[in-house]
Amino acid sequence: MKKILVFGAGLTAYYAIKYLADHGPARQWEITVADANQETLNACKNEFPGIHIAKVDVFDAEKRAAVIKPCNVVISLLPNYFHVLVARDCIDFGVHLVTPSYVTADMNKLNNETISKNIIILNELGLDPGIDHLSSMNIINRLKEQGATIKSYKSYCGGLISRKNCDNPWEYKFTWNPYNVIRAGSDGAMNLENNQLRYVPYHRLFRETKIIEANNESFEMYLNRDSTRYISLYGLDQVPTFLRGTLRYPGFCKKWNSLVDAGLTSDKIEMTFANDISWDKFLNGFSIEKSDDGDTQKALEWLFKDAGDIELKTATPAANLQKLLEKKWKMNPADKDRVVMLHEIEYEKDGRKELLKSLMDLEGEDARKSAMAKTVGLPLAIAAGLIADGIIKTFGVILPVISEVYRPVLAALSSEDIEFKEEISVIS
Amino acid sequence: MKKILVFGAGLTAYYAIKYLADHGPARQWEITVADANQETLNACKNEFPGIHIAKVDVFDAEKRAAVIKPCNVVISLLPNYFHVLVARDCIDFGVHLVTPSYVTADMNKLNNETISKNIIILNELGLDPGIDHLSSMNIINRLKEQGATIKSYKSYCGGLISRKNCDNPWEYKFTWNPYNVIRAGSDGAMNLENNQLRYVPYHRLFRETKIIEANNESFEMYLNRDSTRYISLYGLDQVPTFLRGTLRYPGFCKKWNSLVDAGLTSDKIEMTFANDISWDKFLNGFSIEKSDDGDTQKALEWLFKDAGDIELKTATPAANLQKLLEKKWKMNPADKDRVVMLHEIEYEKDGRKELLKSLMDLEGEDARKSAMAKTVGLPLAIAAGLIADGIIKTFGVILPVISEVYRPVLAALSSEDIEFKEEISVIS
Repeated sequence: MKKILVFGAGLTAYYAIKYLADHGPARQWEITVADANQETLNACKNEFPGIHIAKVDVFDAEKRAAVIKPCNVVISLLPNYFHVLVARDCIDFGVHLVTPSYVTADMNKLNNETISKNIIILNELGLDPGIDHLSSMNIINRLKEQGATIKSYKSYCGGLISRKNCDNPWEYKFTWNPYNVIRAGSDGAMNLENNQLRYVPYHRLFRETKIIEANNESFEMYLNRDSTRYISLYGLDQVPTFLRGTLRYPGFCKKWNSLVDAGLTSDKIEMTFANDISWDKFLNGFSIEKSDDGDTQKALEWLFKDAGDIELKTATPAANLQKLLEKKWKMNPADKDRVVMLHEIEYEKDGRKELLKSLMDLEGEDARKSAMAKTVGLPLAIAAGLIADGIIKTFGVILPVISEVYRPVLAALSSEDIEFKEEISVIS
Repeated sequence: MKKILVFGAGLTAYYAIKYLADHGPARQWEITVADANQETLNACKNEFPGIHIAKVDVFDAEKRAAVIKPCNVVISLLPNYFHVLVARDCIDFGVHLVTPSYVTADMNKLNNETISKNIIILNELGLDPGIDHLSSMNIINRLKEQGATIKSYKSYCGGLISRKNCDNPWEYKFTWNPYNVIRAGSDGAMNLENNQLRYVPYHRLFRETKIIEANNESFEMYLNRDSTRYISLYGLDQVPTFLRGTLRYPGFCKKWNSLVDAGLTSDKIEMTFANDISWDKFLNGFSIEKSDDGDTQKALEWLFKDAGDIELKTATPAANLQKLLEKKWKMNPADKDRVVMLHEIEYEKDGRKELLKSLMDLEGEDARKSAMAKTVGLPLAIAAGLIADGIIKTFGVILPVISEVYRPVLAALSSEDIEFKEEISVIS
């Protein structure tokens, strides 16, 4: 029996645990789910009786070590700043680790040690980053094998609410980590366009948007962080255009930008109020510019109407905005979310210029069985299984850009109905 | 003999060392200057033969400890992130410390230990922060003693180039730490206006400026960081208006904002170029909006004209901008700088409403003997002397807001011709 531990049983854990529980008996996996919350664990055990549960606070070094030590593979679904803590234990006990998060500098520092100890720390294997890497590398390497020269790589992803459940003027709800949504883009973004490195600062990011068409539907796109760090990783060192973007329904960015522009998304300075203070009074301290866009005005009015008092009397503007949005943008239990991912890749082959579009458009079942939970959780569980079974065996702090990872993970995702549809058109 | 160590013999050290060297013999001080650069030390020794010099790299824990251990007081003129390192040694060896820098959270954590070991760590005692605290507290406490109720506190400070040496279209040169100038305001700013807490994000900071009149001259003012942290420290808990600002010559902020708006002052994302790249080509990656202001256009043209290649091939936009500005905004050796500090305090007393203006306007002698070096270095040296002589004796991590500090330091500054002129007018 190979032992696989899922550390963190929160929102995104459902599909990861389900996959492991479903395949565990046949593939000889013993599954343990660890979490700090006993109720969450009990609910888990109730739903998947074949698994073990363990109440462990990540800060409790002793219990953390005890639960990690006997394992073959750990999936960390903890907030990203805990991954290094778990990684440290994994290295000490010779356990492999899979995470959905961006590789940090601290994580990268562990590379040599993991290689020398024959350990795999596989990161960025959720949705975005994650499925974007898998599907992009699959296309890029296939095109290269066909003798194509890639001229432009553009990749977009959005975690959205299904059109049917767009019942607020923002046409948006939280289907994923609220903090990440509030702070999205705050470092600005960088991309490469026709061999020109372009930097867009935060306060311009939601103004410099583009309309992207996918399957006869329009989306609004803003640039996603530093795209350029993936150019070499994807083997596209000579590509003139490389861009990653985030998708929203049209009109969202203008609305959101009115909050960014006013400073309401800032987490740099804490404001302290001695007494209760209403949102109306609080907002007098920010310059929200009147928009000429009626939809934006409506969205702002809806957001701040009956908002009551701010929740945190000592907090950054972003923290109080998050508290308000967590109420206003909360999914109803029956709401369906939606995940859209689109790659647009231009290349030259046999003297022709072609455009390949690859689209994944997935709808969730409800707020818990969401498309987001599925697309984040399944790649992690699949990869953990492949590591346990000895199929993935490249040691080090790695990303899922190698065929040893992306081929079998994509194949398994396809069996779970997570698939891309491709369309190729000749440009010239 | 009391031993006083000046750690760091860079730009701002001249007046601090001069003061200590001049007064040392009479007041029984033995002065040592430590620095990592032997040439700097030799020049120092040459100018002030009575002092000792010690070549010490701050990273060399052994030598650092050795030079601190025998002292009574250390003045740290090192970059601010080193102060805690020095503070640690000071606590271990029972040595007092004076710094010109903002108190960090790490420094504040040392408070209990310093109190229990009878050690003084006196921070924020340069110009701004520093002389602003001294002079403000002197006025505030005097007004309170007179029975006044303070209704509005506004304080402005600017490190400028003398009008006579304004020979570039920005009317600005570096008279102080370039990095701090480039990144000024990047956390946004907060202040209190008519009992309303106001937050201004970075991208609005240089747009929301005000004209301030001082001695029949106009200055442009942008808000300076989080003003509100000083409200309680200054004993002004009930004050309706509390604001701190930075002064520039009129027109500067519009010019500077065109760089901020384009993202050229950002230090969030590093850009990497494989080959040499000209500033013209580099700037194509940023959206610098055409200004309707001719002076701004002229200032931008002057800045980027003949700029050549960018200096750092892997760096943030801010780092490359700093390299360019260090060339373009460099003071000539004979240039005179200027320091302007203005407090505007409104209060009610005996049924009348009055406005007190207190102005310091100081010109430097040349680029080395600058007003900035004088106003940063002298308060530190004076306070170090007062600590050595046992006149300042309040233990802990403290600020110069107590009369035990501000009274004797202001008196000594006055003997050095650093003085404020007061003007009181009746408002109603």
